[in-house]
Amino acid sequence: MPELRKDPITGRWVIVATDRARRPADFSRQQVVPVGDRFCPFCPGNELKTPPEVLAYRPNGGPNESGWTLRVVPNKFPVLRVEGDFNRQGEGLYDKMNGIGAHEVIIENPDHNLTMSELPEKRLEDVFWAFRDRILDLKKDRRLRFILVFKNHGEAAGASLEHTHSQLIALPVVPKRVLEEVEGSKKYCDLKERCIYCDIVRQEIETGTRVVLETDYFLAICPYAARFPFEVWIVPRRHHSHFEEADIPTIRNLGWAMRVVLRKIDKVLERPPFNFNLHTAPNQEPEMPHYHWHIELIPKLTRIAGFEWGTGFYINPTPPEESAKFLRDVGLV
Amino acid sequence: MPELRKDPITGRWVIVATDRARRPADFSRQQVVPVGDRFCPFCPGNELKTPPEVLAYRPNGGPNESGWTLRVVPNKFPVLRVEGDFNRQGEGLYDKMNGIGAHEVIIENPDHNLTMSELPEKRLEDVFWAFRDRILDLKKDRRLRFILVFKNHGEAAGASLEHTHSQLIALPVVPKRVLEEVEGSKKYCDLKERCIYCDIVRQEIETGTRVVLETDYFLAICPYAARFPFEVWIVPRRHHSHFEEADIPTIRNLGWAMRVVLRKIDKVLERPPFNFNLHTAPNQEPEMPHYHWHIELIPKLTRIAGFEWGTGFYINPTPPEESAKFLRDVGLV
Repeated sequence: MPELRKDPITGRWVIVATDRARRPADFSRQQVVPVGDRFCPFCPGNELKTPPEVLAYRPNGGPNESGWTLRVVPNKFPVLRVEGDFNRQGEGLYDKMNGIGAHEVIIENPDHNLTMSELPEKRLEDVFWAFRDRILDLKKDRRLRFILVFKNHGEAAGASLEHTHSQLIALPVVPKRVLEEVEGSKKYCDLKERCIYCDIVRQEIETGTRVVLETDYFLAICPYAARFPFEVWIVPRRHHSHFEEADIPTIRNLGWAMRVVLRKIDKVLERPPFNFNLHTAPNQEPEMPHYHWHIELIPKLTRIAGFEWGTGFYINPTPPEESAKFLRDVGLV
Repeated sequence: MPELRKDPITGRWVIVATDRARRPADFSRQQVVPVGDRFCPFCPGNELKTPPEVLAYRPNGGPNESGWTLRVVPNKFPVLRVEGDFNRQGEGLYDKMNGIGAHEVIIENPDHNLTMSELPEKRLEDVFWAFRDRILDLKKDRRLRFILVFKNHGEAAGASLEHTHSQLIALPVVPKRVLEEVEGSKKYCDLKERCIYCDIVRQEIETGTRVVLETDYFLAICPYAARFPFEVWIVPRRHHSHFEEADIPTIRNLGWAMRVVLRKIDKVLERPPFNFNLHTAPNQEPEMPHYHWHIELIPKLTRIAGFEWGTGFYINPTPPEESAKFLRDVGLV
């Protein structure tokens, strides 16, 4: 019998097909392997082909020279601009404003041939330090209300350049889905006086069936009402609403946990395209007792059918318990 | 300067890239042309390869024989089942229920080689009669709260069989996105004592720049805060919350309007894959003064990048005014 499951935070219902569950081999997909046959503006030596960097981790050399291990640059084709006024106005019954904000690219590593999962431990950890550094800097601009950190890996997941990179879009509004999470978790907290993510961490560790990885600081799970096969959430075990306030051991451990999760996904699903998003509290809000930052990672295995757009309703052909078992059990040696 | 626009119903913000707007030729995509090289269970003569029909328009022959012009059958691999109890229950802090519902396929036409836009006028009109007939029948089952009618056209849009068909999923819950529309339009109605969709129709006719087609009963527009290039909404000019209560001239005119819109899309975008959804009021609700049924149609031209999943925030590289102009101006002869 198929099951209808409710996401406890947003209230979204998902159909989980329990009968003929689809296993990793049932998904046909592109393998993401860098081929490097074209000119790449993210490679060392081409620093002047990108806008001037806003951050770099560079043991050697000066700004916009080679010698870096990680580089953050404004997107050459930004979807938002930092300069200007909002100029909020109506157009009859509609509302609009100027596209004020920032759009940056985090070039995770100089080597064109390494994907994120193949980065050395410290390099992958540095990606999260860069996220933190950029958020801390951008949140000084009080016009910016939310910073979206995300990665598109592989062409099928929306990446237009193959050199491993993440992106960041700083917005003057808080996106709807973020508000829903913040409000949904607040409702739970009003009722229970506890954080729902903390409760999820506790219950998932106890149940065990949806756990992918448990570390000192993080729990990686396939969520109960997963929308997609092999969807994984990486949730810090200690409560914090804002990612950018994470301390040194947490960020270190996050780099490690992400690396293990990505390598498991690569192994089970044969280097699939994927997307991840950092879900964190709106910039200008103080620490919240009800919200809890986390990462949502979605391998791109299925096509999105029509009704998902119309309804926010999903059909997941692989129960999260099975996805988790594959990922938990796979060896990395 | 890019523009941030707000969907007046759901409150969703969209970045509309106004600078280097992408035109039809800038999108690479698969052309959807039936090839018919495999066995097709939807073709005449193969009626026994589908579950027994629940509805057919058939000038000649008996049930599950040839001679039909349209046929509705249960999906052979349904995501929900009609029989059984809900058995709503908790699992710690989570909630679940049995997957009770219905999943049906509307085989729009016997000819394997015609796409929906190529159907004769009366055949395309019949598709909407079939939607109406099935909704009226299914809503007698008071366990079913919402009926999702949608079409995936082309493999890239999620279609697994090329013979032209639509689908219907009857759900025991009202999907989140539908609730948002119903609630968003209610807020507006509480404030203004008018239906927001009626106001949109009025304003769009006056402005004209986003109009694709105006008929006696319908307005087809590219919506102000369109999420996607060439997204089109087909909105009835007279207020009704429930599609299934539309009268004869309305359904007739809808068939005609849809045919023209699809042919315009085929011409401008070279037979692209697409999805459409029927947005209508929850089954068991009485007529609502604030909600207004409509169809949302989305050509599948772009890949969905990571952050759309995480945030419900979209970047549209083609302003709806430009999409509408292309579609409005294209000749069909």
